[in-house]
Amino acid sequence: MWIQKEILLQPRQRGFHLITDEVINNIPELIDISIGSLSIFIKHTSASLTINEDADPTVRIDFESYFNEAVPENSPYYKHTIEGPDDMPAHLKSSILGSSITVPISDGKLNLGTWQGIYLCEHRNKKPTRKIVITINGK
Amino acid sequence: MWIQKEILLQPRQRGFHLITDEVINNIPELIDISIGSLSIFIKHTSASLTINEDADPTVRIDFESYFNEAVPENSPYYKHTIEGPDDMPAHLKSSILGSSITVPISDGKLNLGTWQGIYLCEHRNKKPTRKIVITINGK
Amino acid sequence: MWIQKEILLQPRQRGFHLITDEVINNIPELIDISIGSLSIFIKHTSASLTINEDADPTVRIDFESYFNEAVPENSPYYKHTIEGPDDMPAHLKSSILGSSITVPISDGKLNLGTWQGIYLCEHRNKKPTRKIVITINGK
Repeated sequence: MWIQKEILLQPRQRGFHLITDEVINNIPELIDISIGSLSIFIKHTSASLTINEDADPTVRIDFESYFNEAVPENSPYYKHTIEGPDDMPAHLKSSILGSSITVPISDGKLNLGTWQGIYLCEHRNKKPTRKIVITINGK
Repeated sequence: MWIQKEILLQPRQRGFHLITDEVINNIPELIDISIGSLSIFIKHTSASLTINEDADPTVRIDFESYFNEAVPENSPYYKHTIEGPDDMPAHLKSSILGSSITVPISDGKLNLGTWQGIYLCEHRNKKPTRKIVITINGK
Repeated sequence: MWIQKEILLQPRQRGFHLITDEVINNIPELIDISIGSLSIFIKHTSASLTINEDADPTVRIDFESYFNEAVPENSPYYKHTIEGPDDMPAHLKSSILGSSITVPISDGKLNLGTWQGIYLCEHRNKKPTRKIVITINGK
């Protein structure tokens, strides 16, 4: 069984945001899959997807602080600067964190760990709308 | 053909550890797959999975040194500190390295390069037990 | 439907290189897949794959500059030094960026965003030949 959907996420401000429920609400078909795999792919180069702690919101604040320090704006060697100081760091963060995630499906549900959630990592200031492709394969 | 298993890895101390054999020993069914794909997903937010050099153990020591420097403990801006100084860096390392790997299956075997092995990246001090989900799809 | 190919990429110098066309030219079968998934896996531990901006070549130059700064050569704690100063940083960069990418297939094409391309991230100086495994699954 193959299911594929392209959806627009709600626009979010720069930072790390839990989107687990927004994803799951878009795939009611999950319940029919006993074994399978879900991939989510983000069609942008200045936002990314990752899986991390979903309980304490300060984790997501610390993610934003850490990545701003690790991938600074205005590095003197940046050549790609025409789209603003947040743009080149956004491209770098997006490759460090990755443009897709893969999660196992078991017994009709995403088989995430107790504390795992799906993060949208929004690296731009301008709060853009982000498109993701959800692909489910299973039986 | 779909095969899925949830297994407990042997607990390991903080650092980078080769688990290729432990994974392969759990999936004797591999031999029946001529073309396919293996995904391994770790159900935790303070440990991760990656693929790297499996021959020289000093590579894994250098990984631990590098990531401790790149993602320091006790950064003054961390807000998520209640679970100890190794916790927030563990979450960050886990998203930098990733919670899953995907490896092609060819002719009944994982199609890894000559020097590639699967690493469990254990980012916590307390030597926890880690659960992984192995999903194989192929024909 | 399963398709799998192991191909040799043209050797490229250290840096970040667009390989989208080289990949697509090797998989004319894509046109027959209405829904599916493509995985590309690199069989090396000192080169990696990522997806990022394909329009402005200075983005790829900034990637090289950034990763050289973030993962320096000759760190005093490196123990794995016998293969030259570019080797241990190459292993680290390869795990930060990742050894595989997964891209959705929709209506006979890779469903990449407007500005997305596939990068070969070559982390060694010696311009080696790199082997990738392309695995397509779909219907």
